[in-house]
Amino acid sequence: MTREELFNEIKRKKSFLCVGLDSDPKKIPSFLKKFDDPVFEFNKRIIDATKRFCVAYKPNIAFYEAQGTKGWESLQKTLDYIPKNIFTISDAKRGDIGNTSNLYARAFFESMNFDSVTVAPYMGNDSVTPFLQYDEKWVILLALTSNIGGLDFQTEKLENGDYLFERVLKKSLEWGNEDNLMYVVGATRADLLTRIRKIVPNSFLLIPGVGAQGGSLEDVAEFGMNDTCGLLVNSSRGIIFASSGEDFADQAKVESEKIQQKMEALLRSKNLI
Amino acid sequence: MTREELFNEIKRKKSFLCVGLDSDPKKIPSFLKKFDDPVFEFNKRIIDATKRFCVAYKPNIAFYEAQGTKGWESLQKTLDYIPKNIFTISDAKRGDIGNTSNLYARAFFESMNFDSVTVAPYMGNDSVTPFLQYDEKWVILLALTSNIGGLDFQTEKLENGDYLFERVLKKSLEWGNEDNLMYVVGATRADLLTRIRKIVPNSFLLIPGVGAQGGSLEDVAEFGMNDTCGLLVNSSRGIIFASSGEDFADQAKVESEKIQQKMEALLRSKNLI
Repeated sequence: MTREELFNEIKRKKSFLCVGLDSDPKKIPSFLKKFDDPVFEFNKRIIDATKRFCVAYKPNIAFYEAQGTKGWESLQKTLDYIPKNIFTISDAKRGDIGNTSNLYARAFFESMNFDSVTVAPYMGNDSVTPFLQYDEKWVILLALTSNIGGLDFQTEKLENGDYLFERVLKKSLEWGNEDNLMYVVGATRADLLTRIRKIVPNSFLLIPGVGAQGGSLEDVAEFGMNDTCGLLVNSSRGIIFASSGEDFADQAKVESEKIQQKMEALLRSKNLI
Repeated sequence: MTREELFNEIKRKKSFLCVGLDSDPKKIPSFLKKFDDPVFEFNKRIIDATKRFCVAYKPNIAFYEAQGTKGWESLQKTLDYIPKNIFTISDAKRGDIGNTSNLYARAFFESMNFDSVTVAPYMGNDSVTPFLQYDEKWVILLALTSNIGGLDFQTEKLENGDYLFERVLKKSLEWGNEDNLMYVVGATRADLLTRIRKIVPNSFLLIPGVGAQGGSLEDVAEFGMNDTCGLLVNSSRGIIFASSGEDFADQAKVESEKIQQKMEALLRSKNLI
């Protein structure tokens, strides 16, 4: 999917919501256990309930990998079930030397046909660039994460005055551009969004920390939105586990629509729709 | 496996060799293709040929994951085939927020029963500590990697004069110690081993860059060895793909024995055996 196509979907759906398919088998409503593949049955119902209100789905690969081969099957079926006009993110946080990143790229972009994959920057250039060799595929590079440990290294000040995450952003522009690179930016750090937008004004940011993790959607839009929206805001548990009962899909619909409506207002206030 | 047990194996085998099972299906001798699981058949023969000369095996997970469910089966069978007195490293370079790292820890330490897993530090504390909650299991934290991109961020100087990789080492000592933490250190940076040993004098270092990647075993021993050896030196392609013919296992034996003999001399020169 191209950046233009993604922005068109955002305008059409009046939403920049990404639904995180962190479908922990332990949290799935028990009535689904009777099916051969409860995780897929859960995802299918979540997708049916939320697809009108979101422009992206992001399965966190750990939840599938932890189930062994069965998990990979659930993941593939889920991916095949997602409508083609919705952007897909393999939240895998991979990053290894060149040869190996090549293999991961093949796994996620060829075998599984995801639109994008999250990548950790610590190993630098040759761990990231193999993912950038595919047309209309994306790297979403970890820049400033929303977890507490994100402050251990990412906000270290370097000799030249940059934060480490700023160095990561700047360096990444030697490898790619706003048409094949996005960045993970924790919404709880809205004060730092301004610094980020100075370096990557046109790029999409994937914001994982709104909702259960406590960031403010309004702050994110205020400091992060650009003229092609430039934001994908993720919510996982707040939507997919809004209810643990048989009405989980209905509640997921309610919650995703609620967020979509807030997003519509924000897009309007920025004259993007 | 405890640190003492690992050192005992090193003394018994007079070796600190780790064999990297980067068993790319495209490079496996063609006569193995007739088997149901060529990757496992390849690994089995490599293990039979090299197990006398090494103390650790390190499958790089990418090579298995890229094969989908079949790859995970090959990996599990390989792991089950490795003798219990040999240390096993899941070279997965994972690292995600706490909940998710918990799942990865469960996958690699419970479902698959690896002794250790490589972890990327960028997301900090809560991405690493879930792996440290298991007795006799290890985190091998990326510190200074041997690939060219390793210089993009890891050797950035911080405001206080530390390199970023030194900050990673120091910070990690708040989370664990030499009995549950090792570090990946690129052998091509032998000049920096001295700095590393000042911070983690007693810890084991996993050195991936000797052999095909060009580091010197003598330098590594000179600057990195401590009084429990403290080194696991990996060789992958130089051993497992020493020959692409039917004699691949024999050649793997020859190459691993060659390295073991050099290691024996180095252990003697340090009076460790």
